[in-house]
Amino acid sequence: MARTDIARRVYNHTWKLDPIVRSLLDTDFYKLLMLQMIRGLYPDVQVTFSLVNRNKGVRLAEEIDVGELKEQLDHARTLRFSKKEMIWLAGNTFYGRKQIFQPDFLQWLANFQLPEYELQQKDGQLELHFHGSWMEATMWEIPALAIINELRSRAAMRHLGPFALDVLYARAKAKVWSKVERLRKYPDLRISDFGTRRRHSFLWQRWCVEALKEGIGSSFTGTSNVLLAMDTDLEALGTNAHELPMVLAALTNNDEELKASPYRVLQDWQRYYGGNLLIVLPDTFGTESFLRDAPAWVADWTGFRPDSAPPIPGGERIISFWKEHGKDPHEKLLIFSDGLDVETIEETYNHFKGRVRMSFGWGTNLTNDFEDCAPKEIKSLKAISMVCKVSEVNGRPAVKLSDNPEKATGTPDALQHYLDIFGNENRVSKVLSV
Amino acid sequence: MARTDIARRVYNHTWKLDPIVRSLLDTDFYKLLMLQMIRGLYPDVQVTFSLVNRNKGVRLAEEIDVGELKEQLDHARTLRFSKKEMIWLAGNTFYGRKQIFQPDFLQWLANFQLPEYELQQKDGQLELHFHGSWMEATMWEIPALAIINELRSRAAMRHLGPFALDVLYARAKAKVWSKVERLRKYPDLRISDFGTRRRHSFLWQRWCVEALKEGIGSSFTGTSNVLLAMDTDLEALGTNAHELPMVLAALTNNDEELKASPYRVLQDWQRYYGGNLLIVLPDTFGTESFLRDAPAWVADWTGFRPDSAPPIPGGERIISFWKEHGKDPHEKLLIFSDGLDVETIEETYNHFKGRVRMSFGWGTNLTNDFEDCAPKEIKSLKAISMVCKVSEVNGRPAVKLSDNPEKATGTPDALQHYLDIFGNENRVSKVLSV
Repeated sequence: MARTDIARRVYNHTWKLDPIVRSLLDTDFYKLLMLQMIRGLYPDVQVTFSLVNRNKGVRLAEEIDVGELKEQLDHARTLRFSKKEMIWLAGNTFYGRKQIFQPDFLQWLANFQLPEYELQQKDGQLELHFHGSWMEATMWEIPALAIINELRSRAAMRHLGPFALDVLYARAKAKVWSKVERLRKYPDLRISDFGTRRRHSFLWQRWCVEALKEGIGSSFTGTSNVLLAMDTDLEALGTNAHELPMVLAALTNNDEELKASPYRVLQDWQRYYGGNLLIVLPDTFGTESFLRDAPAWVADWTGFRPDSAPPIPGGERIISFWKEHGKDPHEKLLIFSDGLDVETIEETYNHFKGRVRMSFGWGTNLTNDFEDCAPKEIKSLKAISMVCKVSEVNGRPAVKLSDNPEKATGTPDALQHYLDIFGNENRVSKVLSV
Repeated sequence: MARTDIARRVYNHTWKLDPIVRSLLDTDFYKLLMLQMIRGLYPDVQVTFSLVNRNKGVRLAEEIDVGELKEQLDHARTLRFSKKEMIWLAGNTFYGRKQIFQPDFLQWLANFQLPEYELQQKDGQLELHFHGSWMEATMWEIPALAIINELRSRAAMRHLGPFALDVLYARAKAKVWSKVERLRKYPDLRISDFGTRRRHSFLWQRWCVEALKEGIGSSFTGTSNVLLAMDTDLEALGTNAHELPMVLAALTNNDEELKASPYRVLQDWQRYYGGNLLIVLPDTFGTESFLRDAPAWVADWTGFRPDSAPPIPGGERIISFWKEHGKDPHEKLLIFSDGLDVETIEETYNHFKGRVRMSFGWGTNLTNDFEDCAPKEIKSLKAISMVCKVSEVNGRPAVKLSDNPEKATGTPDALQHYLDIFGNENRVSKVLSV
């Protein structure tokens, strides 16, 4: 019997495109939760999402082929949710709740298509914008990032022969597994995969998810990637993101409304979701001001996700907030998700152990850590800090202050205005490795 | 297009045997060189080769399925040299010499078949003997060892799922590659693969050979495995083994002949081969007595392969021998081949650098080092010290004293007799890890 499947070989020779994103479910779960709310409450808001490469030293438009990028983005626009995917979304239980997606939302989603994009090159960088209604443009964030990151990986490895690739992936697998072995020392640790957007590639993320499933068992609580959750029978995880407070803030008409907007977001959210989905993301305009001005009911929510403060002081600050409001931290949940790797997970876990419930959303250092894996160093194989953020809302600038000024986005004037309103307390710069 | 080749899948489901040895060229090159001489000079000698498991703690007959072993041995007996293989043996240049194999030898070889075997179980061990003419039985040594070692590997990994296997081989590849990276710091190092007999598996040996070819380039001088040499366009390497002095010693009729037999071997060899093939293997009955009683012409040979003495004192002893005979060690070659790994190679290389030509024949720790590779430790994945040695010659016991008493073989009476003749000087016990 022939060892080589001739038809497949010829197909491989002649194919034009190896699609990076092959399903609209290949996105983060919180996008779908947010989408349902956005469509329900803000169907008319017009936004722009824009690519931001925080590593200016990396000249993205020179690293990857812009023609290939267009092909991949165009391919993503051809995707629709398949029948199987729609049935799964309707029938699956998410966060313990059945039918979390309402029938009229699903009906609309069945015809969803990613909107057009605007792509240019400038000074070696990519200018990539997604204009349109919020409920359409928001869905570009994850596929756009995943496409650009995987194109970077492919370009970085283009010159490698089969043997070098074999060594590279062998080492990367050995590396992930050594992390898994470190983490399984802590049987009550709870970790999930949050690594879709900056993954090395789709297949590699799948391998990493399988490694966690195999290696840490019930400590692995699930993945933010909806497609992988469906395909590997894992929980789809994630709640909400900075775009909600950013857009709602931009929609306000005076300083009082602006100051109140972060809590307005939570009220909106609570109209749609409950229980473990009641996770506060406090850092959009600085955690300190958020907690200082928070209404008492904010302490009733299940947990907080401190996403840009250093994890230990950030977590301590939230525990203090709960205690000030007479809440027992043992019943509360902290979700850490910012720049985690084994060391920070171990350190944070050991620090808070027994005092609060914890969960770790592990991203880039799970799904894109290839340091020292290539037979000869390839600098462009290193993940970069690239985001795709809402930049404009109904013609106004969108702003994020963050607890880490390096992560701030917005026009200078708007940034200053938000700083005047929310203050600059306890914001600490942390280098953005990824 | 279907991703799964249905026919192949069904074939995989239903196959009865995955042959370990698939070619008579899947053996060590020195076997063929010795075979030509044995057939030319000793066609009537009758011998027995016997399996010796030096790790008695490992109960071989319980680790592997004896029925499977029979199937593999039977399969090896169905093999003949193929036309392509015969043409390559006739047409290839070995050690810089064309037509090293004479036409009448090749004509005989074309019909070669491995002789019958005798297999029993006793106390958890295998009793495996190959009786017959020397020129037939000798050819079992390498395939028999390779088969048993690969059956051990398969048994050790039988309970692993696809993911654990993936991690295991990823780690093993990463491990080999880290050794390659250490060794390529020494650009004038010369290393060859001597790892056929104790390899983890045929495919793994091929991977290791490809890794050395890719990683250390011209420092990789070739492989002892004839099939791999042919398939990967590498030099086939190796000269002669202990069986020559062992058999010739057993054939002697008095003490004087016995004492002279190690030099008689060299004279026989020289009738067939020259140049870089003139490598002395001095340790069969102890290097000290060999050198002490050696005729002056032994110092004219190209090199020595000290195979059981510790490499540094062993090499020094041979350099002294050359100097005593007025030879310049810079023009001589030392081939190290006993229990090498990166550390011993580095240490020995640094010790002798600039004083003598050196070459390293790297065996078990190249092709069967899976320590710490399995997700959960598998003790039976560790290579064992198993050999297949000539045990009887025309009804008399065959003896090996070795520089390392742990490697001695023979009946107690015969061993004592040989010790009386050759002495026991400078023999040093060294634990046989593999």
